Amino acid sequence: MGNVQGPVKRTARKGGRNRSAHKAASAPEPSVRQIRNPYDPIDVMTQEQEAHVHAMSRRLPSEVGLRFLSPETWPILERKGCRVDRDTGQVRFPPEVVEAFLAHAPERFTLHAPDPRNDLSIGDGHIHFGSASSAPNVIDMDRGRRPGTNADFKDLVRLHQMLAACAFHSGHAVEPIDTPVNTRHLSIALSWYILSDKLVLIYAIGRTRVEDSLDMAALARGISREDLRLTLCLHASINVNSPLVVDAPLIEGAMALALNGQVNVVSPVAFSGAMSPISLSGSIIQCNAEAIGVIAFLQMVAPGARCLYGVLSTPIDMKSGAPAMGVPETVTGALAAGQMARRYRLPQRSMLGSTSNAPDAQSAWETMFSLWAVMLSGAHMVYHSVGWMEGGLTTGFEKSILDAEMIGMMGALRGGIDFSDTEEAVATIAEVGPGGHFLGCDHTMSRYRNAMHLPMIADWRAYEFWQKDGAPDAAARVNAKWKELLEGYTPPALPEDRREAMEAHIARRSHEIGDAEI
Amino acid sequence: MGNVQGPVKRTARKGGRNRSAHKAASAPEPSVRQIRNPYDPIDVMTQEQEAHVHAMSRRLPSEVGLRFLSPETWPILERKGCRVDRDTGQVRFPPEVVEAFLAHAPERFTLHAPDPRNDLSIGDGHIHFGSASSAPNVIDMDRGRRPGTNADFKDLVRLHQMLAACAFHSGHAVEPIDTPVNTRHLSIALSWYILSDKLVLIYAIGRTRVEDSLDMAALARGISREDLRLTLCLHASINVNSPLVVDAPLIEGAMALALNGQVNVVSPVAFSGAMSPISLSGSIIQCNAEAIGVIAFLQMVAPGARCLYGVLSTPIDMKSGAPAMGVPETVTGALAAGQMARRYRLPQRSMLGSTSNAPDAQSAWETMFSLWAVMLSGAHMVYHSVGWMEGGLTTGFEKSILDAEMIGMMGALRGGIDFSDTEEAVATIAEVGPGGHFLGCDHTMSRYRNAMHLPMIADWRAYEFWQKDGAPDAAARVNAKWKELLEGYTPPALPEDRREAMEAHIARRSHEIGDAEI
Repeated sequence: MGNVQGPVKRTARKGGRNRSAHKAASAPEPSVRQIRNPYDPIDVMTQEQEAHVHAMSRRLPSEVGLRFLSPETWPILERKGCRVDRDTGQVRFPPEVVEAFLAHAPERFTLHAPDPRNDLSIGDGHIHFGSASSAPNVIDMDRGRRPGTNADFKDLVRLHQMLAACAFHSGHAVEPIDTPVNTRHLSIALSWYILSDKLVLIYAIGRTRVEDSLDMAALARGISREDLRLTLCLHASINVNSPLVVDAPLIEGAMALALNGQVNVVSPVAFSGAMSPISLSGSIIQCNAEAIGVIAFLQMVAPGARCLYGVLSTPIDMKSGAPAMGVPETVTGALAAGQMARRYRLPQRSMLGSTSNAPDAQSAWETMFSLWAVMLSGAHMVYHSVGWMEGGLTTGFEKSILDAEMIGMMGALRGGIDFSDTEEAVATIAEVGPGGHFLGCDHTMSRYRNAMHLPMIADWRAYEFWQKDGAPDAAARVNAKWKELLEGYTPPALPEDRREAMEAHIARRSHEIGDAEI
Repeated sequence: MGNVQGPVKRTARKGGRNRSAHKAASAPEPSVRQIRNPYDPIDVMTQEQEAHVHAMSRRLPSEVGLRFLSPETWPILERKGCRVDRDTGQVRFPPEVVEAFLAHAPERFTLHAPDPRNDLSIGDGHIHFGSASSAPNVIDMDRGRRPGTNADFKDLVRLHQMLAACAFHSGHAVEPIDTPVNTRHLSIALSWYILSDKLVLIYAIGRTRVEDSLDMAALARGISREDLRLTLCLHASINVNSPLVVDAPLIEGAMALALNGQVNVVSPVAFSGAMSPISLSGSIIQCNAEAIGVIAFLQMVAPGARCLYGVLSTPIDMKSGAPAMGVPETVTGALAAGQMARRYRLPQRSMLGSTSNAPDAQSAWETMFSLWAVMLSGAHMVYHSVGWMEGGLTTGFEKSILDAEMIGMMGALRGGIDFSDTEEAVATIAEVGPGGHFLGCDHTMSRYRNAMHLPMIADWRAYEFWQKDGAPDAAARVNAKWKELLEGYTPPALPEDRREAMEAHIARRSHEIGDAEI
């Protein structure tokens, strides 16, 4: 802060600034892709309450049990001291077993994208926002709402590739219903690796799909499966079928991923009042029990396996049955989940999304409301952040732009203030003096270009100019923006031989799979 | 939390819950009007940086000086040890004088509204949101944008009276340009007291207006001017004319208010880059210097005078010249101002508002983005929260509803979680068991009605139902909502004799004032 004691100089000093000394603000990020969480997370529970959630969650796997539907899991669980009812798959975990294995899960790691600039450092204070995913429908203002096709899927991948705020693909941005289900994971992987250089999520529905996804990831990188094991580059969302059921294909897929050194995001998805108690405290206890039980199991399979804590407590509107996103209950639930993740020293996955049917004010306030919540929860990966509408039933082209704009604003919060030049500022105030103005002075002129975050679509024009231009509201502007971005899209560089290798692999695997259900 | 150690009972217990024990969540508020700030404020500066702002701000009033344009202020300042240049009004404060007088300002107090249910407790963890104010224009989707009239002003007062989220009137919701300027404060006061029972703000532009406003406040309550002195019920925003100029009429009005036991909100309004340094640290230093200088002066006038710290650091878009509201720089500025207010143990005034020209997604994200910032800044009164658009140039009927909806959501955050019934929740989980559901069980049925915050206009219907209903976006719904609210408006009870007394007072004063400029 320089010489705080000295008298104010009446002439603004030129040069001689020491921008590096005492600069508390974070260094500017290379791009909005790497968003640093600007503030410390908020605890919504007292230490006593947090310990109570933990204590109650220990009892569920121990006294009620989690039902593991895959018989493959049973001997593993039994070897580690769990009791398995082989008729029902009900597994009772001694509480100390859960805790002992949970402790093996690492606190931080780096996920490697096809382009290293898109690598995601997990658990170090950054927060990464991923695309919408798994929606059956797609919408835009020109063509309306419709079931998703492969063409839509590819366009959304192109759009999300272009949006810096979208750090990774957190699943199929829309389900391409015109591609065969049993080989969809292959065609989607090919599209992803051709169209984007960002990290992808796989659907770990059974070991076969996971093996195929591992093969494709290796081919896309031109490395062997052995080398892939040392390259952290795939993650999957392992949803617990709440209450307390762990489905067979997902957990078998998760085991395969863990054994191959990849990442599982353990996410009980409990719509409270339907799949978990309607009270937030009860829902958190149940989801926490499910999450720590499954993460402990994955540590039995592969000690040190990377996992994210993905508890989401989502209320449903009891009148319409719709998941209500971006509501007050979402905020408190997200903060509580973040607090439990910190207790276990696990990186945390959260989510965004909106319930609105249109790219309107509601869709913006729902997302912005939750956006602050996920930041303040200390989340590390945020799924469904770019484009999700209708509680997840639809992915929107316009909504993708809206969300990227809001995430970009959050990314521009530096969490601190630059104090490197206050001597110069005060000298400028003295120079300008009472009643003067700062418009032309050196201090202003040398800084105004970078003084503000530049938005993508916010319109700050005076009303008259805006009206002369046709009074385009935000929806009209985002509609123009996604088309402009898609027109400017160019695919990332992918060596031709890797593409060919993937295509050959798909041809072979498609033949092998045929019409079989996998 | 009850018996945490006991085994999980397999049957949900009926009754016997102890809702009061260990309940950490705040008690439900009687209405959204009394919003409790759910989270602790965030410090954006280190302790060293905060002290640096303070140290640098001490130097400005001391070394550069604040220019007080009212000669009435000079002897008061001189008596307390300040040096006054009687040619320019430049006042130099010894730093210890600022600090000594600043310490007299109280940390908390209660502002009394015409209806005691609308009293505002200031400084105790509540946050109060006020109406838009001082806009020259008004807009709605039916009639478009136009200069404000008295009819518009009254309709906005009625609307803001109906909106629980609008805790007080923070000024003229729109300027009624068809009423004479020199008696406007009287006709507006009459409208306010007839149409609303919420707290009002006065424009302290000169002693005459303040005296008139005090008279009207006493008549509206049926009390004497002497009793009014003991009834904290008026506040005014004292804007410093940045940089470093304190205009005569405003400070004379502020002195009159302080001497009559009322509240001054000291608000340097510095558009950084124009009226203060473009760097946030420089802007905060200047505004802080201005605020503490004026608050110290008011303590010289009336020791113990209630003041709010109202520093606002607002960037302007250097391209359009428009104040940019709801941008990242607003957030950091609001948090920094809150931190300084806490340092001085002063209650804090902040603001909302948006730059968008329409009630669209941008208008929602701008307000929701800032809404979190003002909550996290620990603000106590938030001006311009309901209806402000175009950086303050227009007040919107639709935007008023949008803002009330968002403030209501924030008000529904309780800042804690109810842990009173976790035993019952866990027993219910055990009863439901793996793979069951909670839809019909007692735990759900007894709670679902109050499980979620009920929104005013959020639409969670399935797309198909929404489309059959004409696919109304949020703008269409808020357009219908303000008309519905105005139709349902009934004025609060005001005894006829008080109304007559006010009318008689206005008739007399209007005759006295005539066409004079006051």
